[in-house]
Formats: sequence, C-alpha cells, structure tokens
Amino acid sequence: MKIICQKEDLQRGVSIVSKAVPTKTTMPILECILIDAQDGTIHMTANDMELGIETVVTGMVEMPGKIALEAKVFSEIVRRLPDNEVSIETDESGTTTIVCEKAKFAIPGRAGDDFAYLPQVERTKSISLSQFTLKEIVRQTIFSISDNENNKMMSGELMEIDNDTLKLVSLDGHRISIRKVHLKESYEPIKVVIPGKTLSDVSKILSGDNDSQVSLFFTENHVIFEFDETTVVSRLIEGEYFRINQMLNSDYETKIIINKKEFLNCIDRATLLVKESDKKPLILTVTDSNMAVKLHSALGSLNEDIFVEKTGKDIKIGFNPKFLTDALRVIDEETVTLYMVNPKAPCFIRDEEESYIYLILPVNFTEE
Amino acid sequence: MKIICQKEDLQRGVSIVSKAVPTKTTMPILECILIDAQDGTIHMTANDMELGIETVVTGMVEMPGKIALEAKVFSEIVRRLPDNEVSIETDESGTTTIVCEKAKFAIPGRAGDDFAYLPQVERTKSISLSQFTLKEIVRQTIFSISDNENNKMMSGELMEIDNDTLKLVSLDGHRISIRKVHLKESYEPIKVVIPGKTLSDVSKILSGDNDSQVSLFFTENHVIFEFDETTVVSRLIEGEYFRINQMLNSDYETKIIINKKEFLNCIDRATLLVKESDKKPLILTVTDSNMAVKLHSALGSLNEDIFVEKTGKDIKIGFNPKFLTDALRVIDEETVTLYMVNPKAPCFIRDEEESYIYLILPVNFTEE
Repeated sequence: MKIICQKEDLQRGVSIVSKAVPTKTTMPILECILIDAQDGTIHMTANDMELGIETVVTGMVEMPGKIALEAKVFSEIVRRLPDNEVSIETDESGTTTIVCEKAKFAIPGRAGDDFAYLPQVERTKSISLSQFTLKEIVRQTIFSISDNENNKMMSGELMEIDNDTLKLVSLDGHRISIRKVHLKESYEPIKVVIPGKTLSDVSKILSGDNDSQVSLFFTENHVIFEFDETTVVSRLIEGEYFRINQMLNSDYETKIIINKKEFLNCIDRATLLVKESDKKPLILTVTDSNMAVKLHSALGSLNEDIFVEKTGKDIKIGFNPKFLTDALRVIDEETVTLYMVNPKAPCFIRDEEESYIYLILPVNFTEE
Repeated sequence: MKIICQKEDLQRGVSIVSKAVPTKTTMPILECILIDAQDGTIHMTANDMELGIETVVTGMVEMPGKIALEAKVFSEIVRRLPDNEVSIETDESGTTTIVCEKAKFAIPGRAGDDFAYLPQVERTKSISLSQFTLKEIVRQTIFSISDNENNKMMSGELMEIDNDTLKLVSLDGHRISIRKVHLKESYEPIKVVIPGKTLSDVSKILSGDNDSQVSLFFTENHVIFEFDETTVVSRLIEGEYFRINQMLNSDYETKIIINKKEFLNCIDRATLLVKESDKKPLILTVTDSNMAVKLHSALGSLNEDIFVEKTGKDIKIGFNPKFLTDALRVIDEETVTLYMVNPKAPCFIRDEEESYIYLILPVNFTEE
C-alpha cells in the first residue's frame, strides 16, 4: 500500500476514528487503526466491538492495500508531523514508512486481514436531524446516566421517536433528564437504548453545525450514525427501559421562578464547603418572594437569600447541590421554573412546552 | 477584628501568600493565612517555616485585630464571592463572618497568637534588579535542579553576585544550567544557595514587569525578596555549592550552529517513540552541513536530517532527548551553537558572551 495525504486530512481522520479505539483490551488488533486504500479511496476504521467508526480520508492511492497501525503511536506521529504532504508506504513485512519533509518514521504494522471490520447492517428504519440538535440534546442529558456496573440499562439513554418528536432520556436512580425536539418529518415509532459512551463519542465527532445533517439507522441490535463522510455503528443495550411516564407528574404545591445564574453562583459558593466524603444537603426555604439558601458543614456555613417569584405554599426542602447544578448548567434560559409538592416528593425543573424536564429527588435533612 | 476590602484586592492577597501554605503538615496553624489589621493597614501572612510570605491588602480597618483562617477554605470562599465589597468580622470565639452582597459565610478561625510570624531579619547586604529579569533567569535554570532527597544542595540554585554580575546556577548530576545578567550597580561578593521551591514560588508571584524592581537582602541563613507590597523570607541551604568552574571548558573539536525550532520539533517527533520506562538515546551524526538525527525504540524509528553550519571534526554522539529539549526551550535566540569534544565529554550550548551556558552529559549508545 502507498498513499499520499495532507497532514491535516490524516489528522482529522485519525482523531475521528480514535474514539473507537479501546484503552484496555486483550486483543492487540483492536488497538489499531486500519487504513484501507482501494479504488482510489482511503478509508480509516477503528472498532472496539461495541462501537465502530469508519471515515474517508482525502488523499491519493498510489498503490492499493491495507495495513493496521497501532493507534496511539500512529496518531502521535501524525500530530507531530510538519504541516505538509505525508506519504505512507508499507512493505511485505508490514513495516510502514511515514515520510513528511525530512522526517522519516518506520513503525511495525499488522496485516489488515485479522482486523474486525464494521458489521454489515441493513439500513431500513431511519431518521434525520441536524448535527447541532443531536449534539445539544446529548450534552443536556448525558450527565445523569449512571456508571453503575450492576445496571447496564442506566448506562444508556432511551431514544424514543414518535411521529415528529424525538425524546432522549437518562436516569440514575436519583434523577431523570428528558429532552424533546421536533423533527422535520414524521416517522414510525422507534424505541431503543443507546450506550452512553456511544452518544458521548458521537457528539464529540459531530461538527455541531446547524446546517449539517446526521442520519440514524436502527436495527434490532444496532444503531448507525451517518454524517459527513463518517459512519458510526454501535450495539444497542438490550431489554426494556424504565417506565418513566409513571414517575412524571404535573401536580405541584409550590412553583418558583428564579434567575438561573444567581442560583448557580449561590450553589457554587455553597459547595465549596462540601468535601467529597461528607455529603451535605443544600436547604432551600421558600417564602413569599424569597428563597433562603443554606448549607452547613464541618468547614463552616453559607446563608444566602435569592429573590424568587413564588406561587402556592411555602416549603423547606433539601437537595444534593450537584444534582441541581448539573441540570441548571444545561438549561439555556435566563430564568427557570421549579415545581415542588413536599420535601419528600420529586422536584421538577421544566419549561411550559416540556421541551426539557429535569426530575430531582430531594434528600433528608436535619434541623440544627 | 473587622475589615472591609474589595473582593479583587482580597483575592490578590490570598493568591500571593497561599504559595507559602504547606500542602502537608502536622501543625494545623501552618495551614492558615493570618489576617492582621493594625494601624489602618491589613497584612496577610503565611509561613511554612522554610518560606514565609507577607503582603499588604488594600482595605479599611473598622476594628483592629487578627485572625488565622484555614487557607484552602478561605481562598475558595474569596474566589467565589461576587465582585463587590467584602466585610470580614470575627467574634470572641474566633468565628469569622464573611459577607458580600447577599452571601454570608461563617467559618471557624484561630487566635493569631500561635501563628508563626516571619523571622525578623537584619537587612544589610542587598541587591536590586527588575522583576522581569529575576523571573526570566529562574525560568531558564530551574528545570535542572534535582529533587533527589539525598542531596539537598542539588534542590537549590547557586546565586552568585560579583561586582555587577549576577549568576544563577542549577545542576542535577547530568547537566548544569547557568544564566548571567548584569546589574545596574556593583555589589560586594555574595554566594548563597536558595531553595528551588523558593525561587519557583517567588517567580510565580513576581509581576514580571520590566519597570518594577525587586530587592534581595541576604543574611547568613536567610534571603528576603521585597517587591510591590510583598515580602518573602526564605531559609538558605547551608553548605558549600559544587565547584562548577572546574567542570566548564571552552575547548571543542566540533562546533555546530543550528536552527533552534527545527531541532526542537525534530526532538519532539523522536520522543514520541520513547516510553517512560525505556530510555532511548537520541543519536546525532554530524557531517558537513548536515546532522542526521536518529532514534530507535521498540515502537519504531525516526530518521531526520537537519541543516547545520559545522566547524571542526565530524562526530556521532548520543543524548537524553529531554535534556536537550529542556535547554533549547528556554533559549530565546533563533539559532543556537553546540560545542562538543567527543562522544564521552560534555556538550555545551552557549552564546558568545556566555550569558547562558547549558552543559549536558552525553549518553552511551550501541550501534545496531
């Protein structure tokens, strides 16, 4: 094999497929990036068996062929080459010579034959949305998946399509995050659970451009993301997702509207008094037009008042401050609305149209 | 005690004195910052017994007094306060209330009486130079001190003043770094060894302004740095420094002039093939107008040619690439000159006036 590419194009390709290179594996071939140059096109592929990524790299094929190169060394080499034309050539033994200007690297390569290619998946059911939208709704929900090894379902996100509505849901036992967006077309109902790692890797590769589209194809066991010249294939998580509808509730006893930034800054100040080991609740006391925020720990105490617009009953309720922060950070609005029933029942942060719903369970607290 | 300051001024003071707060100590009082408000002036002090820093904080003293506050919590609080006026008030029990806008923190404080104040040091012998210059020469030599616990002397830098010349020297057994600058005045000879940590902390606090001066005072056991409204007192390392003059030598068999950036980029590429555990030498083969750079490891090999201006004999010599990189990075010139004798003798990187000298010992290498 011999190919010639610009360093910049090589680097883009390597950085895309590298997301599917496992950090730990007992199969050395999985730690490789496959370069496959056929019919004038250069493909790069990486595959950790759960997630596979393939992309096209602009360049010239001088001699067709394929080679698997250790991903870490190869990407480091590419990154540090001068910004110029790069030639990559292999000999019969697999030794690969990478030449750019006066720098000449030689590294061992493996035959591409034992490489795990992407599974061939039938493409029938599909949807399409903007890269920007997908990237946003992943960012706005991914923080509340759980890395609990005992519950694989919680490590993924539910993607549910119904007519022209796409819903993304994550939950970890203490909270639920839901984002809804409208698609340009209507589709047959789809309900799949996508691994959190896949969503987070895909959203790192997506350009986030509002004008560029990404297509998703669904089969029984796989989801495929297609965008630009890149294909991502991921296994789905098997089984039925949690029934979240029965956890949602629009009744409330107290409703408050609050400036998001003021609330976030206040929580940020309070949490400096919380050490990793001792979890202290943030206690909110809501009365007319005022919310007193309080946190007390071994290090000291914070008391702060924030102006709120209140409807309904007064309430005193405690929260894990991190859960509030995580949700508030991904809401773009200047003001947010909190709905509460009592100090034992979930609190909801949501907008009128329910384009977002963040459910957070309160925590117990003791009065001093 | 009650004082009122702007958040910004408090934050500047805290960030300066925090450098002298030890990360690990068995004496809780040393983990504190002392605020001492007397005669209308607010002083902040921290002291880890080796190094002590005191600075003046702009603000109003409403009631004189002093209090020692746990440095980490106090600095976190200050950092997250709104940008506005801050009041700090203590009660008889030491509890300190920090109020800014609607946020009110209460943290425990300690009586200032058991705080380790800075040693009172006689100020006779002194020199003065620009903050920029001191900061620069520390940066340009500090990397070759050693953290070898068995040789305390190597953990410091020799500061030698002779007439109007100030010399800063560090060495770690494999290399020596020397920087010389001219002072505006002539001074009596001074020769002290300053702990590397002191130099590195001081240079972090220095504004690096060319127009601002820093004064150094020397006693038998201490050095004092005075600049802006800050005083840093540090113990010196006792004993006689290594005799470096006998290690320096201006004879050479090969002299090469090389573009610094090209050389650095080439070494950077080569070192990606070196894993922490297996140290591989960078082999330089100098012939007329050319230097072939080669590195071979289990991961692969790099060969690269760099144009050089050579005077004298051809040479083949091996180096620890990190030592070359460390020295080249702190040289500001576009081209550098290397002087070599043979593959066993030290290599010197220096300019004509010897304002800098970097001595690097070569390493053995085996031909394949």
